Amino acid sequence: MLRSFWQKYNQRYSTLGSRVCIGLDSQLDKLPKAVKSSKNPILEFNRSIIDATHSYAGAYKPNLAFYLADGMRGLEALAETIAYIPDDIPVILDCKVGDIGSTMQGYVKAFFNELKADAITINPLMGKDVVSPLLEIEGSFGFALALTSNPGADDFFHNAKMKLEVPRWMQQYPVERIGAVVGATQVQDLKLMRELMSGRLFLIPGIGAQGGDLRAVLDNAVHSPEDPRILINSSRGIIFASVDDDFAHKAGEAAKELFEQSRA
Amino acid sequence: MLRSFWQKYNQRYSTLGSRVCIGLDSQLDKLPKAVKSSKNPILEFNRSIIDATHSYAGAYKPNLAFYLADGMRGLEALAETIAYIPDDIPVILDCKVGDIGSTMQGYVKAFFNELKADAITINPLMGKDVVSPLLEIEGSFGFALALTSNPGADDFFHNAKMKLEVPRWMQQYPVERIGAVVGATQVQDLKLMRELMSGRLFLIPGIGAQGGDLRAVLDNAVHSPEDPRILINSSRGIIFASVDDDFAHKAGEAAKELFEQSRA
Repeated sequence: MLRSFWQKYNQRYSTLGSRVCIGLDSQLDKLPKAVKSSKNPILEFNRSIIDATHSYAGAYKPNLAFYLADGMRGLEALAETIAYIPDDIPVILDCKVGDIGSTMQGYVKAFFNELKADAITINPLMGKDVVSPLLEIEGSFGFALALTSNPGADDFFHNAKMKLEVPRWMQQYPVERIGAVVGATQVQDLKLMRELMSGRLFLIPGIGAQGGDLRAVLDNAVHSPEDPRILINSSRGIIFASVDDDFAHKAGEAAKELFEQSRA
Repeated sequence: MLRSFWQKYNQRYSTLGSRVCIGLDSQLDKLPKAVKSSKNPILEFNRSIIDATHSYAGAYKPNLAFYLADGMRGLEALAETIAYIPDDIPVILDCKVGDIGSTMQGYVKAFFNELKADAITINPLMGKDVVSPLLEIEGSFGFALALTSNPGADDFFHNAKMKLEVPRWMQQYPVERIGAVVGATQVQDLKLMRELMSGRLFLIPGIGAQGGDLRAVLDNAVHSPEDPRILINSSRGIIFASVDDDFAHKAGEAAKELFEQSRA
């Protein structure tokens, strides 16, 4: 029986109460020595990380770029990683795709049917054509970039006011199918995003390496105490907490810490 | 000796005078019967198409989506296709990526170093962070989405005025490194884009399947008769001109026709 991302996310949240999304940005040249000699280092690394962190994970988010950078072996690592993640934890593939309809059909086939992701991230710049093919995949989910927290966010999200335009555009889509990537740098932006997107699930990157403040996120982006509708992503802060032989143990500790700090 | 995309493009144009970019949107389930039983149908198809069309090609543009949709075999087809394209014809990988710096480093490694593309398409929504890692790759080139011609272009390019914002933003980057994807539907838009981006190389999709008019493009988007700085892309109109056993021959004819129609 097919479960939708939305069901899986809600089930996981009601069971574990975790708001933690663990970003599997498993960049080959940053991996610990302990896995470097293995046949598929990224896969070996991810398995250890998943073993050590799954008890705290509300979701996992592998990032396509770091897998493609390792060629065929990397794509294999991505497929095997998704297959290895326990079935009750939703998998969000971070790929930020956005193209015309026929091309999007290729991407959603690749990501949902071949790789078996539960959700993907999408770039809304090309408009409704980006979303339509995704909605045709039963149970699928897309997180559209609504506001990012990188330095370049000034160029269009802030200066060209895309941070107002994208949330308004998103209103045509049900919250059960389309969520929002919301960068976590400024308190007033978090408040604004929640006002503009009541009820929508936020995927919030930028905690840790990108400098976002967890407390500000919890105070301003949560939808309601019972139904928070936020996933707080941490990538390097968890998976590269240590690059020594104890890397998996340290990743588990970092995941546990974020799990506890981000609970209600 | 490394040749940059810019050198390769200019060399090819001065030799052949072709403004034709052939889009290798080689979607598995649309391939002719003749290649379907081969070990790697997409690769087999592309080789035949390249054999039949290379005399007219100013560039080739494989689209990542259709390769990822065929899994590991598709990624292999993409790598082998790029390797098969004659060395004097530039290869633009259509992937429309756009992410923060660390992630873009993964993509540019994958696309320029592993797959050996000469150029990629990029989505500028996340701003300058998208471009910086690309510029660090010597000789690389990126075509940023400046205006698209799909129905969803109304949502942000037209209604949110991104078609003015992106060309202005692009002025900070040299024309030898950053070009523009410019949709070909409206004459006044083509004129506006050329005014806003004098000297910049345009990659123009939307001829044929997407309904753009070749004459309008030639009259309004060309930079100068001697130095046109446009690549007119046709994908399905060439590669799927026929799906019978004569598919390669028909593709060659379609490529030749566009080559001749689009010359000065």
